[in-house]
Amino acid sequence: MNAPFDPGAAGAALALPQPYLLFLGDTAEASYAKTAFGLRDWAGERCVGELALSDRTVTTGLPRLSPAEARAKGARALVIGVANEGGIIADHWVASLVEALDAGLDIVSGMHARLADIPALREAAARNGRRLIDVRTPPARLSVGTGRKRSGKRLLTVGTDCALGKKYTALAIAKAFADRGVDTDFRATGQTGIMIAGGGMPMDAVISDFEAGAAEALSPDAAPDHWDVVEGQGSLFHPAYAAVSLGLLHGSQPDVFVVCHRPGRTHIMGLADFALPSIEEVIDMTTRLGRLTNPAIRCGGIALNTASLGDAEAAEVIAEHKARLGLPAADPIRGGAAFDALIDHCLA
Amino acid sequence: MNAPFDPGAAGAALALPQPYLLFLGDTAEASYAKTAFGLRDWAGERCVGELALSDRTVTTGLPRLSPAEARAKGARALVIGVANEGGIIADHWVASLVEALDAGLDIVSGMHARLADIPALREAAARNGRRLIDVRTPPARLSVGTGRKRSGKRLLTVGTDCALGKKYTALAIAKAFADRGVDTDFRATGQTGIMIAGGGMPMDAVISDFEAGAAEALSPDAAPDHWDVVEGQGSLFHPAYAAVSLGLLHGSQPDVFVVCHRPGRTHIMGLADFALPSIEEVIDMTTRLGRLTNPAIRCGGIALNTASLGDAEAAEVIAEHKARLGLPAADPIRGGAAFDALIDHCLA
Repeated sequence: MNAPFDPGAAGAALALPQPYLLFLGDTAEASYAKTAFGLRDWAGERCVGELALSDRTVTTGLPRLSPAEARAKGARALVIGVANEGGIIADHWVASLVEALDAGLDIVSGMHARLADIPALREAAARNGRRLIDVRTPPARLSVGTGRKRSGKRLLTVGTDCALGKKYTALAIAKAFADRGVDTDFRATGQTGIMIAGGGMPMDAVISDFEAGAAEALSPDAAPDHWDVVEGQGSLFHPAYAAVSLGLLHGSQPDVFVVCHRPGRTHIMGLADFALPSIEEVIDMTTRLGRLTNPAIRCGGIALNTASLGDAEAAEVIAEHKARLGLPAADPIRGGAAFDALIDHCLA
Repeated sequence: MNAPFDPGAAGAALALPQPYLLFLGDTAEASYAKTAFGLRDWAGERCVGELALSDRTVTTGLPRLSPAEARAKGARALVIGVANEGGIIADHWVASLVEALDAGLDIVSGMHARLADIPALREAAARNGRRLIDVRTPPARLSVGTGRKRSGKRLLTVGTDCALGKKYTALAIAKAFADRGVDTDFRATGQTGIMIAGGGMPMDAVISDFEAGAAEALSPDAAPDHWDVVEGQGSLFHPAYAAVSLGLLHGSQPDVFVVCHRPGRTHIMGLADFALPSIEEVIDMTTRLGRLTNPAIRCGGIALNTASLGDAEAAEVIAEHKARLGLPAADPIRGGAAFDALIDHCLA
């Protein structure tokens, strides 16, 4: 027991070739390289190095390697670890990507543009018998949901909005479970999470009829004391994405959910007409809707993203939420006793 | 005003060529020809005739025509009006479908199998410059939802389950609205509805991220006193399809919803472990979730499918629901004063 936490330990709906070489292109801004940093932080033992096109490029601190050097060190795929406006694959990246294919690496991308739509990549992949993997593309054969209760335990992170820490919280909880000797898998539902885990289900790209079924496939039957910690998507209170959130909730049939929130955010991101729901509303609605597939569903606590606050202010906000809601509250990034208490309550 | 109700009067997300020739294949069982009967009943003035492969085939009562005869009478498309186990296009249908393409008709199908996957059809369509239209395929360019309040009024049918009359109820309400001189469009969300309307949005085939956005596109801004009557899909309490229902609810932003129910059904169809929700639960949950995009949402009444009951028993069941819920209740197929009262309350 108590093996080092590895979010990619188990099989999943999509399965990616690993270890990785992280491609950084010519990205000079760290904010565009979040995928690469996430992979370094959460899947560092499965990243052999980084490939950059210039000395001005950001760095993950991993060794700079050519594709051939990375292949010699065991890498099986080059991962595009940077984003840019529009999610396109820049023309001046293509030569390096072809070099990677020629060196025997597959290519993994989470960008909107599809790798196979670039003729030079398609030809190089065919020539080398290599794969071009778009992690936004769901597996071909999904089934509709059945609602059948599966064995094992499940935790789902949910949110008052998008983009406030549902992936990070799920990873931190999965790591904390594993650190306590609990048999745990992180189940990824978005592109970065899927790259970190080496597999998963791109829930927002699944056809609606199969949404709950895809979530069922993502966290299959397991041993009674095994936990799947499932990365949440969207929010039940988001006018565009609630369908994704509900299909994921029903299909995940969580025993426990953790509400992720960013104190200070007052409106749904990018939608000034939509006030953020209260945490109380999110707990109530998640419980009511989640009961359909798991009558025992309960809230395990509140994960607060306090990145914009100082230490004292963060501690105050965390204490206020804990007192008001009568539930453990913690910032998973800050960790500490508050986060330990949240983990206790999730496993209780 | 008070023009004859035509569910296909207005433009919609998908637009189909009409009038139709109804293809019945060699289907001897009426239950497999529901699409053809629905088209005859609701779009009869846009059906020039039927095409059958044998004398034993069911009939809609429309004239039997060859594709060339139908074309001469103005038909623009052959519609496959029958289903079979597996939703496939039978080999022995193909010659007739090719004949239709050669006669200048497009082909419209709601089957699972894609028309263009049959080489003979693909070739005949290309040769004649004709279209093969799968109504299960959503339009290519959909946007994510915005939640922006649109002008005009909207009604959505919702249900305690699938397959209990949401399409029929929406058609009957749209007809009743139009009969009263209300400017009304029926907005189709499933394959048969789309064929009847000549357009619409196959909501269950839309990628989850775009589900609410697709519903927004289906019922665009309209005149302040115009009503879109939107065909519901699935149920918020269905473990497989609730995501479809929620995206449709959020994107439709209905002012009024009507709950469809089949008295006597006790469990979700095909899922013995899932008890049917009560109508009260459906009203409460639809109101709570629907408020996100339309704070004024309200229940217009209950549509009861009493097909399996005798007249006296049906009247009793309808009266019981009305008294218990304090809302108009009616069977749209039976119509009468009860249905008039439901329409009054929807328009109130």
